[in-house]
Amino acid sequence: MSARAQIGVTGLAVMGRNLARNFARHGFTVAVHNRSYAKTASLIEEAGHEGDFVPSESMADFVASLERPRKVVVMVKAGAATDAVIDELVPLLEEGDIVVDAGNAHFPDTIRREKALRERGLHFVGTGVSGGEEGALLGPSIMPGGTRESYESLGPILEAISAKVDGTPCCTYVGPDGAGHFVKMVHNGIEYADMQLIAEAYDLLRQGLGASAAEIGEIFEEWNAGDLESFLIEITAKVLRHTDAATGQAFVDVVLDQAEQKGTGRWTVQNGLDLGVPITGIAEATFARALSGSVPQREAARAALPADATPLEVPADDAARAAFVEDVRQALYASKVVAYSQGFDQIAAASAENGWNIDRGAMARIWRGGCIIRARFLNRITEAYERDPGLPLLLADAYFTEAVGNGLAAWRRVVAKAAAAGIPTPAFSSSLAYYDGVRAERLPAALIQAQRDYFGAHTYRRTDREGTFHTLWSGDRTEVEA
Amino acid sequence: MSARAQIGVTGLAVMGRNLARNFARHGFTVAVHNRSYAKTASLIEEAGHEGDFVPSESMADFVASLERPRKVVVMVKAGAATDAVIDELVPLLEEGDIVVDAGNAHFPDTIRREKALRERGLHFVGTGVSGGEEGALLGPSIMPGGTRESYESLGPILEAISAKVDGTPCCTYVGPDGAGHFVKMVHNGIEYADMQLIAEAYDLLRQGLGASAAEIGEIFEEWNAGDLESFLIEITAKVLRHTDAATGQAFVDVVLDQAEQKGTGRWTVQNGLDLGVPITGIAEATFARALSGSVPQREAARAALPADATPLEVPADDAARAAFVEDVRQALYASKVVAYSQGFDQIAAASAENGWNIDRGAMARIWRGGCIIRARFLNRITEAYERDPGLPLLLADAYFTEAVGNGLAAWRRVVAKAAAAGIPTPAFSSSLAYYDGVRAERLPAALIQAQRDYFGAHTYRRTDREGTFHTLWSGDRTEVEA
Repeated sequence: MSARAQIGVTGLAVMGRNLARNFARHGFTVAVHNRSYAKTASLIEEAGHEGDFVPSESMADFVASLERPRKVVVMVKAGAATDAVIDELVPLLEEGDIVVDAGNAHFPDTIRREKALRERGLHFVGTGVSGGEEGALLGPSIMPGGTRESYESLGPILEAISAKVDGTPCCTYVGPDGAGHFVKMVHNGIEYADMQLIAEAYDLLRQGLGASAAEIGEIFEEWNAGDLESFLIEITAKVLRHTDAATGQAFVDVVLDQAEQKGTGRWTVQNGLDLGVPITGIAEATFARALSGSVPQREAARAALPADATPLEVPADDAARAAFVEDVRQALYASKVVAYSQGFDQIAAASAENGWNIDRGAMARIWRGGCIIRARFLNRITEAYERDPGLPLLLADAYFTEAVGNGLAAWRRVVAKAAAAGIPTPAFSSSLAYYDGVRAERLPAALIQAQRDYFGAHTYRRTDREGTFHTLWSGDRTEVEA
Repeated sequence: MSARAQIGVTGLAVMGRNLARNFARHGFTVAVHNRSYAKTASLIEEAGHEGDFVPSESMADFVASLERPRKVVVMVKAGAATDAVIDELVPLLEEGDIVVDAGNAHFPDTIRREKALRERGLHFVGTGVSGGEEGALLGPSIMPGGTRESYESLGPILEAISAKVDGTPCCTYVGPDGAGHFVKMVHNGIEYADMQLIAEAYDLLRQGLGASAAEIGEIFEEWNAGDLESFLIEITAKVLRHTDAATGQAFVDVVLDQAEQKGTGRWTVQNGLDLGVPITGIAEATFARALSGSVPQREAARAALPADATPLEVPADDAARAAFVEDVRQALYASKVVAYSQGFDQIAAASAENGWNIDRGAMARIWRGGCIIRARFLNRITEAYERDPGLPLLLADAYFTEAVGNGLAAWRRVVAKAAAAGIPTPAFSSSLAYYDGVRAERLPAALIQAQRDYFGAHTYRRTDREGTFHTLWSGDRTEVEA
């Protein structure tokens, strides 16, 4: 067997298969392998004409078919399956070869694996790949971690198959070891927030306008021509305008209202807690999904809890209708900026903690195409970090300050109306609370710290001088230096 | 050395020392030990007259001074120090002896340690102890896990030194292995939420009444005579009425507004995410502390972000003033019920997952005294679970439904006003969003699940028939069974 393949893919379920086809379609010779040969055979039979594939039955042949330094993309289920494939691969590889984990690994696992392979002279690249099956085939957003050295030979291949926006690949080097999977995780967390915000906007419009799902779909289609232009808004319009064939009802009305999750939102929030970065939008979105699936609690509550709410008034005329729709649009945009600002804050914190040196503007750039949160406004984020690479808060960039500021009155109206009307808007209202919290001159956190000193002698700092202090609360209440 | 001590304490920093004194004051013969003898000597010198202490210099003598089955309370720093002491103790103990970890261990560590000691024929009791230094001395709330068998001999001693409310000890058997430390963790999470809610109420009153901290302190003192009666409300009144001697200003105004945390709030939220239980009140409270300490972000935001808010109108007369204060009180009470309801939901979920069989009503009962969240309304929680031990949602108990229902209009007004006025109330508004979410007939989660099916073929269920379905979105949009 001659070593002529430029890249290999092992694990040929739909994601791996589509990635392999994407490589082949871009002119690369692709070695392909799967634990059972049936999947490999079916790939060759059905897509073999698309390019130059080198199929192998055994892992040893697969490895032997690759040019050096070998580049092996592992596309199997995250967890034990990934470790098993790596264990099988490693003895067959030679110094300088590159193992690419393109699955949905949790970034601490990637850090562990990178270390283990580095000690054996191999490069391990944990990479985020976003865009689902279609993205894998037609151009995903790719977020590779690992060594810079590995990116020199691997990067051009990944960039070639990635989505392109204005001619720029949606793939760039992210940072060492776990950085790629970390950034993909935060991407998914932001996706949770974005979807929840869209759901809240839909709910408000539906209840506030007394309109059909299809009519709300038209509003989302209009929004997609403006600042909110994005994949998620686009598909929301499509979903809302879709009619269920079986019943003739709006499709969204026959779907069970319990949103599921696969874990990346949870990981993101757990990491935000570890880092001490308030990512309230992602947290509320994650918990909103959990709440939707809390069946016994919802049943008990529906039977027992009063609403005592004033339903939203249906607008009297077109002007009032347009004003309400615009208010909701502004609230959605502002809340979305908060969610992204929080997510980029988390990336900055993790980057500092792990020494990853992640370029936040470049992350926004590679999310413009291929992935689920692809959106026009990511350009604005890239520009913000180009203006100030050390920007401490995305919200405080002049563009976003003005954009959110313009919609601030509307945002306040929407959150206030939802509270009065009994429409749950956890992500809208949490994002507004964050906005008002982060800009506050003084927070009542001072009272919390004082309480902590009272009951636990946890001490406090003062506004007027350095030091750490404790008040002798159960004594004469004098202050002592701690 | 005769084995005459009924219980032993190793680790004589302030918590261990005070627990030892508490045992002695209740007539128990207490073996005491510390890594360095100086602390043991100082305890005997300063508190030896309070009861019957048996000091030992070595761990071996300490163990030898205990009656069988030996009961050793370990009161050292959670983590490696705890493991080190256990490792030193275990070879000296005999089958049936009981090791009590009274520190702040994370419950998975307790599960691990219990298993290890059980395999060696020993009982390991991870116990929550709440109430700080003062509680340890005068009567804490005690939440012991471990085997029921260990509680037979250990329980009476712990109950004797615990706080008492209406003659009932604030100590009961919680459940196997990690159950005790788990319940203590949730207790602390609820404490975070409770403190944040109080802080938000204070902030609203301060800004809405244009009153001094001391005047707000008087309002809290009045509240402490009603449904809100609790330790935290009591000390809030005291803190707010305290004047800083150095400046003559209100004490709370000279405390830096950055609230710190020691990790139990974070653990609680991370566990809620793992269990899929929406504990939004605790999450917002934990993130609010993190936000308060996000100094660079706050500085950037303060300089850049507009308020565009309408400040709360100062009430024109006493009646309007009283109405506003009552609205805030109702909002605080309702939000607090939500936070506790969520926390008890988390206990139920963990209990089911781990087979702990925790009696939620009994947990509320042992929190009535000794601990930080001790409060009058815990009696109402105990009664709710006595009425229905399987109650799926505390909020749906008739007493709480009515109590929250009575204040619902006020709660909605407060959240709406805070949004309009630019006062951050993340926990108030998140709790209201939870209330409206859990009682909603339909949630927009249906749209989220439809989006997931669109971009990731994650499938959905339908409202009108069983099964799992997928729509061929990029095909002819027919529906297929998945």
